[in-house]
Amino acid sequence: MLQCVGYGATAASAPVAPISFNRRDPGAEDVVIKIAFCGVCHSDLHQVRNEWRNTVYPCIPGHEIVGHVESVGAGVTRFKVGDAVGVGCLVGSCRTCSACQKGFENYCENGFNGTYNGVDPIIGGPTFGGYSDKIVVDQHFVLTIPEGMDLAAAAPLLCAGITTYSPLRHWKVGPGHKVGIVGLGGLGHMGLKIAHAMGARVVLFTTSAGKAEDAKKLGADEVVISKNADEMAKHTDSFDFILDTVAADHPIDAYLGLLKLDGTLCQVGAPENPLSVSAFSVIWRRRSFAGSLIGGIPETQEMLDFCAEHGLTADIEMIKMDEIEGAYARMLKSDVKYRFVVDMASL
Amino acid sequence: MLQCVGYGATAASAPVAPISFNRRDPGAEDVVIKIAFCGVCHSDLHQVRNEWRNTVYPCIPGHEIVGHVESVGAGVTRFKVGDAVGVGCLVGSCRTCSACQKGFENYCENGFNGTYNGVDPIIGGPTFGGYSDKIVVDQHFVLTIPEGMDLAAAAPLLCAGITTYSPLRHWKVGPGHKVGIVGLGGLGHMGLKIAHAMGARVVLFTTSAGKAEDAKKLGADEVVISKNADEMAKHTDSFDFILDTVAADHPIDAYLGLLKLDGTLCQVGAPENPLSVSAFSVIWRRRSFAGSLIGGIPETQEMLDFCAEHGLTADIEMIKMDEIEGAYARMLKSDVKYRFVVDMASL
Repeated sequence: MLQCVGYGATAASAPVAPISFNRRDPGAEDVVIKIAFCGVCHSDLHQVRNEWRNTVYPCIPGHEIVGHVESVGAGVTRFKVGDAVGVGCLVGSCRTCSACQKGFENYCENGFNGTYNGVDPIIGGPTFGGYSDKIVVDQHFVLTIPEGMDLAAAAPLLCAGITTYSPLRHWKVGPGHKVGIVGLGGLGHMGLKIAHAMGARVVLFTTSAGKAEDAKKLGADEVVISKNADEMAKHTDSFDFILDTVAADHPIDAYLGLLKLDGTLCQVGAPENPLSVSAFSVIWRRRSFAGSLIGGIPETQEMLDFCAEHGLTADIEMIKMDEIEGAYARMLKSDVKYRFVVDMASL
Repeated sequence: MLQCVGYGATAASAPVAPISFNRRDPGAEDVVIKIAFCGVCHSDLHQVRNEWRNTVYPCIPGHEIVGHVESVGAGVTRFKVGDAVGVGCLVGSCRTCSACQKGFENYCENGFNGTYNGVDPIIGGPTFGGYSDKIVVDQHFVLTIPEGMDLAAAAPLLCAGITTYSPLRHWKVGPGHKVGIVGLGGLGHMGLKIAHAMGARVVLFTTSAGKAEDAKKLGADEVVISKNADEMAKHTDSFDFILDTVAADHPIDAYLGLLKLDGTLCQVGAPENPLSVSAFSVIWRRRSFAGSLIGGIPETQEMLDFCAEHGLTADIEMIKMDEIEGAYARMLKSDVKYRFVVDMASL
């Protein structure tokens, strides 16, 4: 077994703290990655605190992982020692179902294997995430970080980046489109940058007037304060696509009414309680209320290459590993611009 | 003015009863149609009883109209006296907006003009529907009933037919697809016939076990009793498309969970209260909860031609005009197989 150190929780009520643990011995297809940086996603907090009621302890979160290849198995063809690589939310899937065959491992019909709180296929027990010194991952689920990209600022692309890129690409956002981004957090700020880079006219919806200036710097052509009904009404029937990153309860009908004929509102934030959607909101202009979950491996690589080409990375605040609980507390208040990233040298 | 007789209501609390009224004198682009049959849609009842709180009285409903051309204006090129023709839910639209230009007059950005409770563009006042001896309609909104089609059974195609055909066509239902139809009423029975004729494998969802035999005769390959959770669970992640015709509150998440990757549930029934939709239901398999409203004029003609080609019409119960209130009472109990049609010779 590969002995590792990291930060994890041993119970829902326990803080995230130093922990020693084992990973599987690397197999022929495995890449061992020395982790340089790991982004801090809200899912990490949900998982360690057992808010989804499915956490297996100890829980070591982190699924926005970047680092360098330390060693490779005999069957590894795509990576060599020293390569800058990334790992996102997935470290396994069946590879045989129709979704996997199409490169949508994220929609694997047999369920994808999560980077943490999944099941290690060799040694059993939970998979452990990126709050750690190293990780062992099948080469299929390892991404190449394009040359020259800032490693720390690239980390959030592995979840926040692909979660927003995938639906923007799937719904063919591009020049001539009017696109809305709802919410300016970790996901929203990446959605804004990517939609802008895709050539769309981008409108950022936020409840905080204080975020307007920042949003424009990040690529918004216009900012709408969503609490202002008059401002909202000006945009009725005008959007091709709206990407909704808000994970709290919020009025979906108000946004559906802004879509034009055949427009789609895609939810990537996941509010815990069901949303209220009027049938009339979707019937009236043949609109769709859709969702999207992370992205597949080929499109994650495509996203990284797209971001490199357009000079995009996340806006981050770097923290040390032992500052994680304080970072969680600030994240809960949306007090971060726009993603915390742990410097693993601090471990 | 053209003096007409019909059946209408003078107030929300008044029964539908004989009434005399005027239509505009036919203009150069107008077709005067002697009405032979008119289908009875649930919307008729909503409108005469002011359940949408927008009814202008007197209200003469009916938007599933078939008959014969009695006269044509000087500019009418598409119809001649004696032609079998139909009129559906629309008798006008701006004709210039981008939706109209694409043949989606039903999604006219300036609002389409309804066959009843619209506004007559020449003489003002409400438009009056098909519970009457004749109607004056701009040729653009007049459909050709294909030769040999039973006129009475064709009437419901003008609303129930196009409302189900349009989304089935838009979402490209065809051979190899597994399609669900929710509800077996006026809309549902047409959706079933049309989806079957398009070559899909069709599953009918109903709460009434008693409807199973009928559903199979109408084209269902399988019938699922939606109250039976085990039966529902067998179909998880398996549908390409579900057409939901139910206008009462019902559990949307239960149906969304039956869609496979990129599947769409399209609502054509319009429940009065908002529906409860879990974000997870759409995120999990990139599913869509969509809606669709009637159909445009070109696709209505396409639907009629498709139905003629496949020998499809509605299953109807013929009534006399003075039986309308009794028909409404039975319709409210879903006691009709599957659409009442008024024989206008009885007026």
